[in-house]
Amino acid sequence: MTNRARVLIDCIDQKGLVYKISKVFFEHDLNIVSNQEFVDKESSHFFMRSVVTGEFCAKTLKEDILNAIGRDAAVKVAEPRKKNIILLATKESHALGDILIRYLDGELDANIVGVIANRDNLKSLVERFNIPFVCISADGLSREEHEELVLKELEKYDFDYMVLAKYMRILTPNFVSKYQGRIINIHHSFLPAFIGANPYKQAYERGVKIIGATAHFVTDDLDEGPIIAQDVIRVNHRYDWRDMQRAGRDVEKIVLSRALKLVLEDRVFVINNKTVVF
Amino acid sequence: MTNRARVLIDCIDQKGLVYKISKVFFEHDLNIVSNQEFVDKESSHFFMRSVVTGEFCAKTLKEDILNAIGRDAAVKVAEPRKKNIILLATKESHALGDILIRYLDGELDANIVGVIANRDNLKSLVERFNIPFVCISADGLSREEHEELVLKELEKYDFDYMVLAKYMRILTPNFVSKYQGRIINIHHSFLPAFIGANPYKQAYERGVKIIGATAHFVTDDLDEGPIIAQDVIRVNHRYDWRDMQRAGRDVEKIVLSRALKLVLEDRVFVINNKTVVF
Amino acid sequence: MTNRARVLIDCIDQKGLVYKISKVFFEHDLNIVSNQEFVDKESSHFFMRSVVTGEFCAKTLKEDILNAIGRDAAVKVAEPRKKNIILLATKESHALGDILIRYLDGELDANIVGVIANRDNLKSLVERFNIPFVCISADGLSREEHEELVLKELEKYDFDYMVLAKYMRILTPNFVSKYQGRIINIHHSFLPAFIGANPYKQAYERGVKIIGATAHFVTDDLDEGPIIAQDVIRVNHRYDWRDMQRAGRDVEKIVLSRALKLVLEDRVFVINNKTVVF
Amino acid sequence: MTNRARVLIDCIDQKGLVYKISKVFFEHDLNIVSNQEFVDKESSHFFMRSVVTGEFCAKTLKEDILNAIGRDAAVKVAEPRKKNIILLATKESHALGDILIRYLDGELDANIVGVIANRDNLKSLVERFNIPFVCISADGLSREEHEELVLKELEKYDFDYMVLAKYMRILTPNFVSKYQGRIINIHHSFLPAFIGANPYKQAYERGVKIIGATAHFVTDDLDEGPIIAQDVIRVNHRYDWRDMQRAGRDVEKIVLSRALKLVLEDRVFVINNKTVVF
Repeated sequence: MTNRARVLIDCIDQKGLVYKISKVFFEHDLNIVSNQEFVDKESSHFFMRSVVTGEFCAKTLKEDILNAIGRDAAVKVAEPRKKNIILLATKESHALGDILIRYLDGELDANIVGVIANRDNLKSLVERFNIPFVCISADGLSREEHEELVLKELEKYDFDYMVLAKYMRILTPNFVSKYQGRIINIHHSFLPAFIGANPYKQAYERGVKIIGATAHFVTDDLDEGPIIAQDVIRVNHRYDWRDMQRAGRDVEKIVLSRALKLVLEDRVFVINNKTVVF
Repeated sequence: MTNRARVLIDCIDQKGLVYKISKVFFEHDLNIVSNQEFVDKESSHFFMRSVVTGEFCAKTLKEDILNAIGRDAAVKVAEPRKKNIILLATKESHALGDILIRYLDGELDANIVGVIANRDNLKSLVERFNIPFVCISADGLSREEHEELVLKELEKYDFDYMVLAKYMRILTPNFVSKYQGRIINIHHSFLPAFIGANPYKQAYERGVKIIGATAHFVTDDLDEGPIIAQDVIRVNHRYDWRDMQRAGRDVEKIVLSRALKLVLEDRVFVINNKTVVF
Repeated sequence: MTNRARVLIDCIDQKGLVYKISKVFFEHDLNIVSNQEFVDKESSHFFMRSVVTGEFCAKTLKEDILNAIGRDAAVKVAEPRKKNIILLATKESHALGDILIRYLDGELDANIVGVIANRDNLKSLVERFNIPFVCISADGLSREEHEELVLKELEKYDFDYMVLAKYMRILTPNFVSKYQGRIINIHHSFLPAFIGANPYKQAYERGVKIIGATAHFVTDDLDEGPIIAQDVIRVNHRYDWRDMQRAGRDVEKIVLSRALKLVLEDRVFVINNKTVVF
Repeated sequence: MTNRARVLIDCIDQKGLVYKISKVFFEHDLNIVSNQEFVDKESSHFFMRSVVTGEFCAKTLKEDILNAIGRDAAVKVAEPRKKNIILLATKESHALGDILIRYLDGELDANIVGVIANRDNLKSLVERFNIPFVCISADGLSREEHEELVLKELEKYDFDYMVLAKYMRILTPNFVSKYQGRIINIHHSFLPAFIGANPYKQAYERGVKIIGATAHFVTDDLDEGPIIAQDVIRVNHRYDWRDMQRAGRDVEKIVLSRALKLVLEDRVFVINNKTVVF
């Protein structure tokens, strides 16, 4: 018997969905702690996230919902558990460090199972938090060869999400396809502005007055995946690109941690390269 | 028969409310265009705003909901209609002008039935928009005497909401009680900072780095009513209080218009001096 | 004799510039009310904006500065005067209306000499403010033919700046070259994101969580001119592109008016497709 | 001989100050890398921060400036050196952790000489960064007794600034007077809103739509010292006070670190309970 669960529903819209679902909740004598719905008109998809409490069997609850609204629906009844995450990084410590501090603090509902980096300078930081650190250098390797090694290492871990905490390597479609919808990246620009390399230099060249950062799921298209969270910060003509980079770090880390928290709380649905965030 | 309505519900929370309400919608064969609920735990109040379409009798729908969830509930089935608003002003044109431009544009779902001011310099602006303008000077009058005249004038109009677009007069409890929950004010500070007179001077004296504006319902306590919307803008040591005032005007007008729009769309509920904004 | 002036200097950087310029001020017995300098390292350009008071001959002051720092410098000693602006619009009233209200209010240090639009629906609004309105329809005309007519009309006015207050026509290089550095546009996106047509639709498609607006000088490259001001507003999955458009209007008008104010106060220098904003 | 210095000047305003100072720079054959001035009209104080390079004797440069502008001026010629800071904390790790990560990263131009806390739960975190940690419990002690112990401990360290990284103890005037102008605090509200205890509860009760944080120098008046930096974050009716607290942490840590950085770079002047921030 379960006492608390997140019910996550993604299905084709139809009349009476809220009624049918809330009827199942009612028959299970559940309390609805919070409830949010959304219909994406373009795709005719219905999304719902409910937090329910009571005494119930999660499996039966799920079955009853499927029977009520149709067995094609994607329904999850997620009992509370910490998710496992693995972090990939290169050499910058701000985004990684922000996650580590929150982790130590108990703010993240997650276990960090390890950190993999293509440089070794973060080893000391990570090991201070008693987290396994593996360096897989890319020196002298092709992109494919390096990824092969990383993929092999990844197989050793059991994780729900992979977080690219300023991992400055481009992933191949082969890599991405293995962890579809489970890789979260922080891009150091307000996407879709400044796709690609060195966005701060691009921002400086363009003379923008605001810079930003974007956390998104990784898809095959570089910097084109569904956006989870974004934020910005003001700059002015006194900022050269390194100043922008420094200022941008604060936005990057906050946006990545915010996106990670949303994902860990099962608040993010994906539809057609966009997200619904409850 | 109605084709589209906003259903607004405010009642004591109980198990199964969403089920009971969505059941009524289902039995009336309604489409739920959008739906938002919230339970305020402190007060155990349940709030819901649904936009529904279909072919239905608004009165019957309301009755059926009341029968389903209990007749103590506050239920409105609001068919689409423009609300009437009356504006009170003093001499500044930015907040008033912003509303007038939106009004002309058709952006506001409202009729402006008139403008009452205690100065006459806005007359020319208002009449350009073919809106009745009445000046009721407070010169030589006590607060009560002036309010008496304003109240008498207000009786001539039929309005849902009164908008204080920088009306620089303090209202007495007597005045406020006559239009309980229907007066919207813009205060030129980020409340509760800088309550009372000349908040920009106060902000300057305090050396704040951010200033703001607050739109709220007016209650008996000066600047203490339920907050509908707030926004802020950065300032620095180069701003004297007049610079802050100038910069603040942009925030004031946007916040007031945003709050007004929320109210006109029936998105704002009040509970215990706070608002629920869907 | 002049009592107050803005001194604007743009020259190649050299050692001792501040000393040489402030020496001239000192010898003229001027008070420096405010003073800002900046050196753009990439271009080795020095920029300075000083507000000075005293009793002085503007022409002599300028001569003395040129003699002190070299006659290649661009030096302006701008005595206080209202600048003339002409507005171009199409059919939306929010940006235009915002400027008109500020104009009436005396907030803008400018005379509006006229409004030219390619539609006629704004005529009534503009004429309420006693400003000449001319409609030059583009129906049935090629871009060049239409511009020819607009250029002919523009010749009748004496203006310092042309403000495109949501003028939804692309200007040809021929047109732009005639008013180099004097045309201010508001683009309804956070440039360089969503260049080109219907940025709100693009933003919706991309699923961004923040939208914005950009005021910039117009150059030959569409949406690529020097950025003067930008601002943003949060959106979420509940916004379709029309909701984004509606929300974006508030940002557009505020950003355009802010940029216009900066330009009218001689606070904006241009260097290499970027601006220095004092 | 020095090669690079920050020149900081605070004096009564007089005609020709910029000229006199830049003349000294010129005579020392210095490059002005950056230069900012401000005159506070209320107090008639002139402030200047210049970064200069060249080959010069810092002591002579200072003498020459004093001789040029009057020996009452406060003039510092600060050669580059890391400042020493000591951190005081209680039990929350977010603000402290943020500083530690930046410290490790080399982002802070400072040495952390130690952390003193009135609880011991942060010991493990701090010692991971090889920084001395001392716990001085306040259990069973009067405020004065506890402060006595902290003051005694503080005497063992050589530091320029004391940073209260969520140190949840009120300091007595006696304590503050010993470190006048050298204590930086982060207050978990957008001051002057919600002075005193538990500002998030206060914010929740008031129903604000935006919360914030304020970094300020500590003076005798609780939460009334000169503000260095502020920032805000949006909340809504779905946030209870603990949600506000959680969301607020991100603002707190960023604002404190930003203020600390400004102070370490000698960018902050204080005048009449306000700051000038270059």
